[in-house]
Amino acid sequence: MTSTLITNIGTLVTNDPSHPGLLGTVEDAAVVIDGSVVTWTGRAAEAPAADRRFDADGRALLPGFVDSHAHLVFAGDRTAEFNARMSGQAYSAGGIRTTVAATRAASDEQLDAQVDRFVREMLRQGTTTVEVKSGYGLTVEDEARALRIAARHTPETTYLGAHVVAPEYADDPAGYVDLVTGKMLDACAPHARWVDVFCERGAFDGDQARAVLTAGIERGLIPRVHANQLSHGPGVQLAVELGAASADHCTHLTDADVAALAGSGTVATLLPGAEFSTRADYPDARRLLDAGATVALSTDCNPGSSFTSSMAFCIAVAVREMGMTPDEAVHAATAGGARALRRTDVGHIAPGARADLLLLDAPSPVHLAYRPGVPLTAAVWRAGIREV
Amino acid sequence: MTSTLITNIGTLVTNDPSHPGLLGTVEDAAVVIDGSVVTWTGRAAEAPAADRRFDADGRALLPGFVDSHAHLVFAGDRTAEFNARMSGQAYSAGGIRTTVAATRAASDEQLDAQVDRFVREMLRQGTTTVEVKSGYGLTVEDEARALRIAARHTPETTYLGAHVVAPEYADDPAGYVDLVTGKMLDACAPHARWVDVFCERGAFDGDQARAVLTAGIERGLIPRVHANQLSHGPGVQLAVELGAASADHCTHLTDADVAALAGSGTVATLLPGAEFSTRADYPDARRLLDAGATVALSTDCNPGSSFTSSMAFCIAVAVREMGMTPDEAVHAATAGGARALRRTDVGHIAPGARADLLLLDAPSPVHLAYRPGVPLTAAVWRAGIREV
Ligand SMILES: [Zn+2]
Ligand SMILES: [Zn+2]
Repeated sequence: MTSTLITNIGTLVTNDPSHPGLLGTVEDAAVVIDGSVVTWTGRAAEAPAADRRFDADGRALLPGFVDSHAHLVFAGDRTAEFNARMSGQAYSAGGIRTTVAATRAASDEQLDAQVDRFVREMLRQGTTTVEVKSGYGLTVEDEARALRIAARHTPETTYLGAHVVAPEYADDPAGYVDLVTGKMLDACAPHARWVDVFCERGAFDGDQARAVLTAGIERGLIPRVHANQLSHGPGVQLAVELGAASADHCTHLTDADVAALAGSGTVATLLPGAEFSTRADYPDARRLLDAGATVALSTDCNPGSSFTSSMAFCIAVAVREMGMTPDEAVHAATAGGARALRRTDVGHIAPGARADLLLLDAPSPVHLAYRPGVPLTAAVWRAGIREV
Repeated sequence: MTSTLITNIGTLVTNDPSHPGLLGTVEDAAVVIDGSVVTWTGRAAEAPAADRRFDADGRALLPGFVDSHAHLVFAGDRTAEFNARMSGQAYSAGGIRTTVAATRAASDEQLDAQVDRFVREMLRQGTTTVEVKSGYGLTVEDEARALRIAARHTPETTYLGAHVVAPEYADDPAGYVDLVTGKMLDACAPHARWVDVFCERGAFDGDQARAVLTAGIERGLIPRVHANQLSHGPGVQLAVELGAASADHCTHLTDADVAALAGSGTVATLLPGAEFSTRADYPDARRLLDAGATVALSTDCNPGSSFTSSMAFCIAVAVREMGMTPDEAVHAATAGGARALRRTDVGHIAPGARADLLLLDAPSPVHLAYRPGVPLTAAVWRAGIREV
């Protein structure tokens, strides 16, 4: 294997608690990577020799972003629906079912190309780990197909048969829950690491969500929950009770919800792209952080409510709108995402960690919020391989 | 000269009022460019032959963005100040004067490299015309130097000696206005097309602003005004009265201000990056558009209050926060900016127009708002030359 010394790093974000500040920054730093992992970090002046050398030219090096919530297996888009919503026009069709119909009609090759396109688009923006959910198939075959395709691109695959009740079961939601917890689960579990449910009025109530998550857990899947996005509800409490890795959205929380998250190992994953693109109120990250909860940021990338793939954009909005400091937002987009996926190999930079690195075209990670919308990717390594 | 046929354009934004909608879109379109100009537009099926062929692959082609308000001649940045502001910490230093000191201390070469860097960064994001202001020198020599350097990069140079009162004149603002309207103007006018003033409490009042603009007009410069950003004030009315090309910011407007803009040739240039990065209330674009005013969007790119260079970001925020439809925001970022710079050769796509073209990595211009933060540049031509 060939080792590479990345030197002359202006600011290194390690997320190592033994270094200063929330981000564990080291100034005038260097990193050595060997094969797929980091083997050394420290001050540039003390760096060991390596086979190759990369001059970071005073720029900031961060762990690659960990996007722990994305819906990438879909076909079609919903441009007309978005345009109508943002233009104040009525639009009768639309919704998740539009995407379900297009996704079912697409070939495996089309769906695979779509996932590949988004994963590469994310990589160009510094995202080196991404979770991908099913949820636009809603039949046994289509959900299993979505997860098989997702698994070609990431190990973080999430079974979301319980995204909405399938149109065929509109009059029999209990029958759909039986399917999701029965035959569909049988077909999907081999291809998934996680089980998820959209616990919300109009989707699945607390009892239905519990049934879905419990069935998944019995099949060895780890739970995560779409919780408290549009209204107060039982999602967060259920997530904590079942030991979910993450409760996602967390936009409408009671004090008891906040306390439950803070007292648990369940990460609060906030998805500001959804509120941005639906003109909804943002979640209050400050309240969660002050209570002691662990916060992650993710894109929620999907064609209906949040078609961004930019973690930098989510950081900038979280700072503008959700009471996060720039450091907290960067931490949430890296270490927070890793926690939400229970990954210890990504989201930080230390010997032994996977060499997932984002070199910014800027001297500090603050620039991700300070320079909103500006593409700041200078280089990206994933598992030690220079991808961008 | 070599002609190029750009064909298979999914949606062509012409901004031509004889075509449908605000953006004058043509579907399944083609464009021919020859040398630095557009020579033909229309349906792809009817396109004439050309020397070369570029397949747009169903993507959207727009006029390059016209960023009519940017402060690019500066040195240093204000990362610590931004970080403190967004982290709720006190920060005593900072402000424009920090940038003035760094700019004065920089060499010509450093400033030139900085402008070049930002112009190229903008070009990568689809901006093919940019206005550049002085205003961080505040001495006769430093203001003239800033404009000489700016003029190497754009014809749209703006004399902004009246950005703030120079520190040397803190106790003699009248003396500074005399300088700005006298020796400094003499030194700067040969390098500038425009004269601008920051008309605001703490900067220059209505009488001072009038003196600055009138002196500039007498030297052949065309006025534009930083008006009504932080509070109600005389800026907008003064801009209209003096026939300014643009009143910029327009965040705090009375009904009379809105009516004055609507009844004038003065464009209301809105700069949402400033409100985003200072957590201020956004201007109400809807109110201006409904009254009949012409609206432009620009970045206000500067290290203090709006360090974005992304017109796409401004479009997305304008749609989210300012009541603009996606079409209106795209129009404001192209045709609106051209109006604000009194340019008829840019901001639209028609035979005779400069071949400033942005090919999106998306099928429609709506995606600029629909996919916030995502870099969507597929190709950029400036004056017929492929730059990206
Ligand atoms: Zn989701
Ligand atoms: Zn300005």
